[in-house]
Amino acid sequence: MTRSLYLSNVRLADGQFVSVSSVDGRIEAIGAHVTAPPGAHLEDGGGALLLPGFVEGHTHIDKSNWGRPWYRNEVGPLLTDRISNEREWRKTSGHDAAAQSLALSRAFVQMGTTRLRTHVDIDTDARLRHLEGVLATRQTMHDVLEMQIVAFPQSGMLVRPGTVELLGSALTEGADVLGALDPALIDGDPVASLDATFALADRHGKPIDIHLHEPGEIGAFTLRLLLDRAETMGMQGRVVVSHGFCLGALPERERDALLDRIAHRRVALLTSAPPSRTVPPLKLCRKKGITMFGGNDGIRDTWSPYGVPDMLERAMLIGMRYDLRRDDDLMIAFDCVSEAAARGCGFADYGLRAGARADLVLVDAASVAHAVVARPVRKLVVSNGRIVARDGALA
Amino acid sequence: MTRSLYLSNVRLADGQFVSVSSVDGRIEAIGAHVTAPPGAHLEDGGGALLLPGFVEGHTHIDKSNWGRPWYRNEVGPLLTDRISNEREWRKTSGHDAAAQSLALSRAFVQMGTTRLRTHVDIDTDARLRHLEGVLATRQTMHDVLEMQIVAFPQSGMLVRPGTVELLGSALTEGADVLGALDPALIDGDPVASLDATFALADRHGKPIDIHLHEPGEIGAFTLRLLLDRAETMGMQGRVVVSHGFCLGALPERERDALLDRIAHRRVALLTSAPPSRTVPPLKLCRKKGITMFGGNDGIRDTWSPYGVPDMLERAMLIGMRYDLRRDDDLMIAFDCVSEAAARGCGFADYGLRAGARADLVLVDAASVAHAVVARPVRKLVVSNGRIVARDGALA
Ligand SMILES: [Zn+2]
Ligand SMILES: [Zn+2]
Repeated sequence: MTRSLYLSNVRLADGQFVSVSSVDGRIEAIGAHVTAPPGAHLEDGGGALLLPGFVEGHTHIDKSNWGRPWYRNEVGPLLTDRISNEREWRKTSGHDAAAQSLALSRAFVQMGTTRLRTHVDIDTDARLRHLEGVLATRQTMHDVLEMQIVAFPQSGMLVRPGTVELLGSALTEGADVLGALDPALIDGDPVASLDATFALADRHGKPIDIHLHEPGEIGAFTLRLLLDRAETMGMQGRVVVSHGFCLGALPERERDALLDRIAHRRVALLTSAPPSRTVPPLKLCRKKGITMFGGNDGIRDTWSPYGVPDMLERAMLIGMRYDLRRDDDLMIAFDCVSEAAARGCGFADYGLRAGARADLVLVDAASVAHAVVARPVRKLVVSNGRIVARDGALA
Repeated sequence: MTRSLYLSNVRLADGQFVSVSSVDGRIEAIGAHVTAPPGAHLEDGGGALLLPGFVEGHTHIDKSNWGRPWYRNEVGPLLTDRISNEREWRKTSGHDAAAQSLALSRAFVQMGTTRLRTHVDIDTDARLRHLEGVLATRQTMHDVLEMQIVAFPQSGMLVRPGTVELLGSALTEGADVLGALDPALIDGDPVASLDATFALADRHGKPIDIHLHEPGEIGAFTLRLLLDRAETMGMQGRVVVSHGFCLGALPERERDALLDRIAHRRVALLTSAPPSRTVPPLKLCRKKGITMFGGNDGIRDTWSPYGVPDMLERAMLIGMRYDLRRDDDLMIAFDCVSEAAARGCGFADYGLRAGARADLVLVDAASVAHAVVARPVRKLVVSNGRIVARDGALA
């Protein structure tokens, strides 16, 4: 069955008015003189701004309370408090990774996200239960949301025997990426932890996405160990470092040497742009050729009450964190949740161009910068050639 | 003419269901057994969360482009670039301080703000034109928005001869508070600049609200000079320091000594909680008895594209900046845009209590923390006893 769409009278970021045709979920043409494919559904864009579908580069849909009763947060301040609180809460709250990840995934699509990378907890209590729930959600949503799943040892890996084996099972059963977490400060042995992570990724032929919260010099130490292994294991272009707070808190010379090594090994960096932490230098990373992209991290879970499944709001927060005020600078913030995120995660066929997946968002905004700061209602969301949301509501 | 309102079936932050009666713009009673005043307008709150009207502690309504065509920002990075760009833009853009301040004020009320302190540019180009525009807006809105006006030398004071006299005229013609700006880094002479500010405030019997962006040690130096003068001039409890970035970047011992002096002189601190700058330590300030409150600063102007006239969103940004995650901590973020802001600015008769002005906001939220992170539509806004907005739209 052919499904065709013809979206007329929309405006590109450069101000040009164009039409878009799509057939079978692919963009066929974008331009001023594009005509409707035969039998296409016709849609008048009303002159609205056309954006590519958004990309969520790092979230945790398995543990979100989105759409559920308010979770009253009374958790202690330490990373370990949050980890153990969450494990306890999951046991007593009737946590359902399938239902919760589905609710949040739907909200993402509703607000214009069509590709998403989620970390999913793998631990010796929950075992593969979260993965199974998220795999079910991925199946349910597969036609309108392309999802990458990271098998993530939220409670530590070496520090909880049995976790390495569970991660291996997760990669066999459908996870796309191997996750990791603070090899020194959580796992307690940066060399052994990174060795185990790289060996496991190598055995399964999977890329790596590591949560590296370790600050300052300890983070830099771990990062150097990681870069060594990215090289010796031939993992260039297949590693993402999420957060990398240490890169915002090193002496310039040390930081720049690390950034050069990161660029050379084609390691990508992910930031949620937290206002209370140090962050890698966005413009400098881009200048050095490093792919740096954005994500929400957890959304309304036991870790943090903040976050909404709206990548325009995340772009705004990135813009504010990096003090991006000029219109051209705000294009960088948007790039973090679109093109750069697709590149960083390895989502193929992305963008507003012929041949790419027909993932389109329409908003009433004068410019990309305006869309980022105003976060207007999504007039239309098209995913994989299908109209999935209209005027802010799921279609 | 008596106007009376009876708002039933609303929920306090502690979960208690109550009714509120107001007569002639004042809360008469709040409680479980309150009855309707004779002839009152009856309103069923539907079990929604009742919050006090919000307080904007620091904004610039005279220069906002809210509701106007998008302003394309191509400004250079320095404070002085922004100041001179804005002065030029005002001359060429058809800037209308009355219309622009009115549009933003209406949006503030629509989103639940009933008290607001705005800084208004006074300089040798614009002279008192901005003040006249904002005075007109204050007059138009006076029944539903209590506004304090700060006469603000945005382009510097001593550095632009004639400005001191204009500030004096502004205080005579209706400004409530004397503003000031970076006595060292903008005005070039911290002692002379602060002396002139305190002398002018003293002559007019007005309080002071100073923009202090000066970082680190120079900011601390200026702040010490200011604290000396607050004492010798008898201005205890009548000075606000806005921003105070330096207080987030000093060695602990020096910072704590400064905070003790600030507390002792009852100087209040205002923060917009900028994620790219250092900020005063919120919890420590509160522990020391300092009134610290929040504001948006500029909203969508030539300085910055960010900001919305929604104090719940500002509370959320304050919460994120200070990494407040627990429900009880998020109450602090809300306090910054309600009770603490009223105290910091000196707005009288504030709060959810008998005798206070009847300024009420209803939202669908499980708790104050939920309201802050979700920023739900304002179901009802009551200002000065009048229903001014319903379901997000002005009534
Ligand atoms: Zn994460
Ligand atoms: Zn200001």
